[in-house]
Amino acid sequence: MEGKNIRLCFFLIFSVVLVTLFTVFNFPTEISDKSDMLMCATNSAWCSSSKNRILRPPTTTPAAAPLLRNNHTEDVPHHPLDPLTITEMNKVQKVIKSKFDGSVYSVHSLVLEDPDKSVVRAWTKGDALPTRKASVMARSAGTNYLLTVDVESGDVVEHDTSGISGFPLVTLEDMQNVMSVPFTNAHFNRTIVERGVDLNEVACLPFSPGWFGKNEDGRRLVKLECFTTKDTANFYMRPIEGIIIVTDLDAMEVVEIVDKGKHIPIPKAAGSDYRLNAENSATIKLASPISMEQPNGPNFVIENDHLVKWANWEFHLRPDPRSGVMISEAKMRDPDTGVLRDIMYQGFASELFVPYMDPEEAWYFKTYMDAGEYGFGLQALALDPLNDCPRNAEYMDAVFAASDGTPYVRENMVCIFERYSGDAAWRHTESPITGKLIREARPKVTLVARYVASLANYDYVMDWEFHADGLIHIKVSLTGIVIVKGTSYVNMNQVNADEELYGTLLSDNIIGVVHDHYVNFYLDMDIDGSDNSFVNVHLQREYTKGKSPRMSYMKVNKTVAKTEKEAQIKLKLSDPSEFHVVNPNKHTKVGNPVGYKVVPAGTAASLLDPADPPQKRSAFTNNQIWVTQYNKSEKWSGGLFAYQSHGEDTLQVWSDRDRSIENKDIVLWYTLGFHHVPCQEDYPIMPTVSAGFDLKPVNFFERNPVLRIAPYVESDLPVCKAAAAA
Amino acid sequence: MEGKNIRLCFFLIFSVVLVTLFTVFNFPTEISDKSDMLMCATNSAWCSSSKNRILRPPTTTPAAAPLLRNNHTEDVPHHPLDPLTITEMNKVQKVIKSKFDGSVYSVHSLVLEDPDKSVVRAWTKGDALPTRKASVMARSAGTNYLLTVDVESGDVVEHDTSGISGFPLVTLEDMQNVMSVPFTNAHFNRTIVERGVDLNEVACLPFSPGWFGKNEDGRRLVKLECFTTKDTANFYMRPIEGIIIVTDLDAMEVVEIVDKGKHIPIPKAAGSDYRLNAENSATIKLASPISMEQPNGPNFVIENDHLVKWANWEFHLRPDPRSGVMISEAKMRDPDTGVLRDIMYQGFASELFVPYMDPEEAWYFKTYMDAGEYGFGLQALALDPLNDCPRNAEYMDAVFAASDGTPYVRENMVCIFERYSGDAAWRHTESPITGKLIREARPKVTLVARYVASLANYDYVMDWEFHADGLIHIKVSLTGIVIVKGTSYVNMNQVNADEELYGTLLSDNIIGVVHDHYVNFYLDMDIDGSDNSFVNVHLQREYTKGKSPRMSYMKVNKTVAKTEKEAQIKLKLSDPSEFHVVNPNKHTKVGNPVGYKVVPAGTAASLLDPADPPQKRSAFTNNQIWVTQYNKSEKWSGGLFAYQSHGEDTLQVWSDRDRSIENKDIVLWYTLGFHHVPCQEDYPIMPTVSAGFDLKPVNFFERNPVLRIAPYVESDLPVCKAAAAA
Repeated sequence: MEGKNIRLCFFLIFSVVLVTLFTVFNFPTEISDKSDMLMCATNSAWCSSSKNRILRPPTTTPAAAPLLRNNHTEDVPHHPLDPLTITEMNKVQKVIKSKFDGSVYSVHSLVLEDPDKSVVRAWTKGDALPTRKASVMARSAGTNYLLTVDVESGDVVEHDTSGISGFPLVTLEDMQNVMSVPFTNAHFNRTIVERGVDLNEVACLPFSPGWFGKNEDGRRLVKLECFTTKDTANFYMRPIEGIIIVTDLDAMEVVEIVDKGKHIPIPKAAGSDYRLNAENSATIKLASPISMEQPNGPNFVIENDHLVKWANWEFHLRPDPRSGVMISEAKMRDPDTGVLRDIMYQGFASELFVPYMDPEEAWYFKTYMDAGEYGFGLQALALDPLNDCPRNAEYMDAVFAASDGTPYVRENMVCIFERYSGDAAWRHTESPITGKLIREARPKVTLVARYVASLANYDYVMDWEFHADGLIHIKVSLTGIVIVKGTSYVNMNQVNADEELYGTLLSDNIIGVVHDHYVNFYLDMDIDGSDNSFVNVHLQREYTKGKSPRMSYMKVNKTVAKTEKEAQIKLKLSDPSEFHVVNPNKHTKVGNPVGYKVVPAGTAASLLDPADPPQKRSAFTNNQIWVTQYNKSEKWSGGLFAYQSHGEDTLQVWSDRDRSIENKDIVLWYTLGFHHVPCQEDYPIMPTVSAGFDLKPVNFFERNPVLRIAPYVESDLPVCKAAAAA
Repeated sequence: MEGKNIRLCFFLIFSVVLVTLFTVFNFPTEISDKSDMLMCATNSAWCSSSKNRILRPPTTTPAAAPLLRNNHTEDVPHHPLDPLTITEMNKVQKVIKSKFDGSVYSVHSLVLEDPDKSVVRAWTKGDALPTRKASVMARSAGTNYLLTVDVESGDVVEHDTSGISGFPLVTLEDMQNVMSVPFTNAHFNRTIVERGVDLNEVACLPFSPGWFGKNEDGRRLVKLECFTTKDTANFYMRPIEGIIIVTDLDAMEVVEIVDKGKHIPIPKAAGSDYRLNAENSATIKLASPISMEQPNGPNFVIENDHLVKWANWEFHLRPDPRSGVMISEAKMRDPDTGVLRDIMYQGFASELFVPYMDPEEAWYFKTYMDAGEYGFGLQALALDPLNDCPRNAEYMDAVFAASDGTPYVRENMVCIFERYSGDAAWRHTESPITGKLIREARPKVTLVARYVASLANYDYVMDWEFHADGLIHIKVSLTGIVIVKGTSYVNMNQVNADEELYGTLLSDNIIGVVHDHYVNFYLDMDIDGSDNSFVNVHLQREYTKGKSPRMSYMKVNKTVAKTEKEAQIKLKLSDPSEFHVVNPNKHTKVGNPVGYKVVPAGTAASLLDPADPPQKRSAFTNNQIWVTQYNKSEKWSGGLFAYQSHGEDTLQVWSDRDRSIENKDIVLWYTLGFHHVPCQEDYPIMPTVSAGFDLKPVNFFERNPVLRIAPYVESDLPVCKAAAAA
């Protein structure tokens, strides 16, 4: 026991030092003039290393193109949707402090409260900005607070949240602090040591507990699961299986310890480390590297830090701690008329759902809602230049609030780059039988805005890709580490035919548990204005009844959805439709309503029972497509307070109100889904898997909007030579 | 009448001159020593222009890397699956000539007859080649011939084809010659002139008639549809609607003229031309071009013209007049053991189906099977360097046979390139709450083999993309020109609510008719050997029945398909499965059978009635996935003689034999499908739309096979400067 206590003591000291260092470097507790403290220190784990930054090369592109700055203390807002600046957040922090008047409080979210849509739409460059307001989610004395703070006046409006279950997303500090709690528990320390594990080599990670009934009511909980960090950086592959430490996040104390699985060995470290040079493995290197090169600099500009202009596109991009990024006021200049046309007022990842398919005690609760529980943007860390994004990328920083409301800078959170991957935007070769010698092809260049959220083990690469032809491709790529379950098995021949593993044996003593990933997107389409309709363009078999040598053909039947329930769409391959958002008040020259369609992909649908609590909470997975009437308060499809929520503030609930959606301001929701049955190739780190859906113009333009794009000719392309190191 | 006859005469003279020129430059009718005649003349429409060729830059990569040659007269086969060389085809041509002994004949296909699979699999480099044989499809005196010709001995085996309906694919010469036939018909000339169209400005294109019953029995037909070529290169947008000239392809005479739609105006030329500088439109040009650069040359080699080696991959690639390319003996070297492992014995596009959804007289028959009717490879013309493929691409030529059996060279038919599009092969950032500073990401580089088949108006970009992690991505991109229907309408407000247009009004007097595209792929998987099984990995809801706070979860249930009918798979989103091809005789260390899975995409399913003749002929669209027992003769899923076939020699028929497929040599078939409701953006040329499915390792490797790929570092990347022209 003596030795254990010493080790525990050492661990606690280590933890305290870590937290202290972290606080000093990232969360100055006082608003000071030492504004450089706000900057991302190179020795801070929370920020990217400045030395990795790629600076934009000198460029001859428009002077409006800003050099991205490391120092954000001087940032000022230029657009109604620009995120809160450091100066603004500092003001709000003062207000919050005074509001809680000396009590202990924690800030769980501090972001811009968007002005009303009508105000933003009416605003034009040069106008004074609408009143700047902050939306604050906080907790104090066991109560949730939802506040609107007027940045300048300091006026606070407190919203009633008493009818809403659940809690705001956990703070990074919640997670950091709770990690040491298990080690204060004697039973925990004993059971770890009894398994032959050194307490100094244990890391316990906090996982959201979901909500299943009264056990999760009334208090904010996490369930910690532990791993040994011995001999590998990839401790996820070394679970101490069966131990779950249920912990109260407000009290920071152990509520219950589930202690099962003592017979399950901890998987070996060998083979689990994925880092470069780990285990001295040979490294495969391309003899002749291939690179996306653009020596003249990009063709896009980022005006005033957030307004991206590229090709015919303009959109506002801001980092957001919950969704990652928000794209607002996406518009395209019509290549024929020169008019800037509305397409999407706002789009972002609204919620995720990651249910693991193992009903056993240490696993059943794993039904994560990563945006509402953890903050998909908060977990989006600095990108690796050259490897997360190509060499021609530029980067955007985020300013987020710590749990006391202090702003800090997350460097290089978003990268923006033009992509050419060798494909054609369109092409045609005329058959020589016509006597015409025609071969025309045009290169396809797109613009990608990317961030990567690392939710503990998993990494979600999120791409918003804008095509010059008006298409928006929204792609989610899954990589990182599959969370695994310890097992006593080392070969499938040890497993009885009727025994359920709930997954795949990936390596000795390791099961990759079956799970799903769903990402729900909020897509407030405004096709040439706010009033739009949702049209089900149904394709169905029609019989010719003897009027043609053909028996049958496929007929198009268009139906406008009148109310929200008519737009609850479960995709069926054998009964297909296209799904259009059109403006019924605006037509092309030949009389088609202008529109966009959503082109589904990643169409996995949840197989959980609709009444199962996790499914009720993430009911946005009940359909792939939804359309709701625009309502400023309906943004987070799993609920505003998603953590331990009961599922009464969800997209399903809103949609079931069945409001009118014909020729109204409507919001389209799309749920991208993946079933994942892990395989050995996912060990110890998973090759990227992607799926993306499209928002695609359909009779929006009079004709092909990229008709007049020039082909590449040799003399226009860069002149390159091999790198010196090659 | 006088004037018309003069114009007709002029046209005929022009046609004859064209055919003559064509024959002189491309199809020397005698085997001569003037072997440079075989080369692609720059003034020939059938070949690519030599001056556009990209030559491989001097490279330091292995000496085995050949310079691709323009002159193929010295080609010799090195591998049992190498295509027939010019020398070999010339020998075969002599045999055919003598076989038909002075009678008129036409060669519709002259390709290598693959040696038996067991022979190829047993062959290793250095062994003598198995006997070289040609497979010949020919016609003479109204009869189909299917011949096997021994290249050296000249022995001919004639196969019985009497039980098979249909005809071999049309030759390019068939198509060329038949185009002038309508002009020999007085009624045709009169009706054209009556519409105010100058006969000198009319082009009639041959379209396959399909098969609907006795009208198409007993003789080889085409249906010609005409367009005016006046004032636009894009004559497809100027249909002379309603006239169909049914023509006998063997007799080259008009059988019937359907003459309707006189009231339908010919759509205007304005706005239809897509060529660079057409109509003097402004051209949008990227100020700062972006390019895929690889100044050191590629990392792949092409040994002996056809064996591609890249990263851990090796595969044999040969152009094929029917499928486009055939990939054979695709193998990957296991990064852990160094062993070269079988994955796919052969893969290729087997058949297409493009039914238009208009039952009217001029449209109902448009139910094309482009591989079996026209030759998907025959229509794959020279690629446009820089625009069809990126700058770092290399090119492969094809040698095909003309209708008299003479070989000719199709230059630059295939391009091969490495692709880096800025994505990561895998990545992970460790959450800082663990105190670990980890950010690891690896660039994703792939290898693409591409060809583009131009089937009259449409262009199909076909990509076989090999990933270093073992995945094969097979992608079809649709672009080119949507075939349209003339109409009297210029605005949708003229159309009665109950009137069916069968499509979308795209521009004045132009309807883009609704249609589907299906491409069926033959995928002879050999996972670590030929004997494989097909496993339905079914995902289904399971209830916990009170044993867990969770009500439900998703359970994996694996079923091995015993016979072919059990592997006729209609995908259902709400009832999902993974589909694995495994080797039940080989297991990983932890006991999983090694396997690959097919990951569906482009999942459109045909809505035609299964008994409808076009659907019977293209019955491969009845299911997305099929598995058959390997049979050397079952390669073309729409039938060997697809042209006017009745549908009795199809994948459906073979599969309905319900042979055993468990632990057998099996072939996987996948049908990629697109529904296409045209929209105005598709006018006058269509922005590329893509879909691709994957063949993905699943417990094939012990672990992530790209774990040890090195990240990019700045000093390894090329040094580029702007082009002089910029």
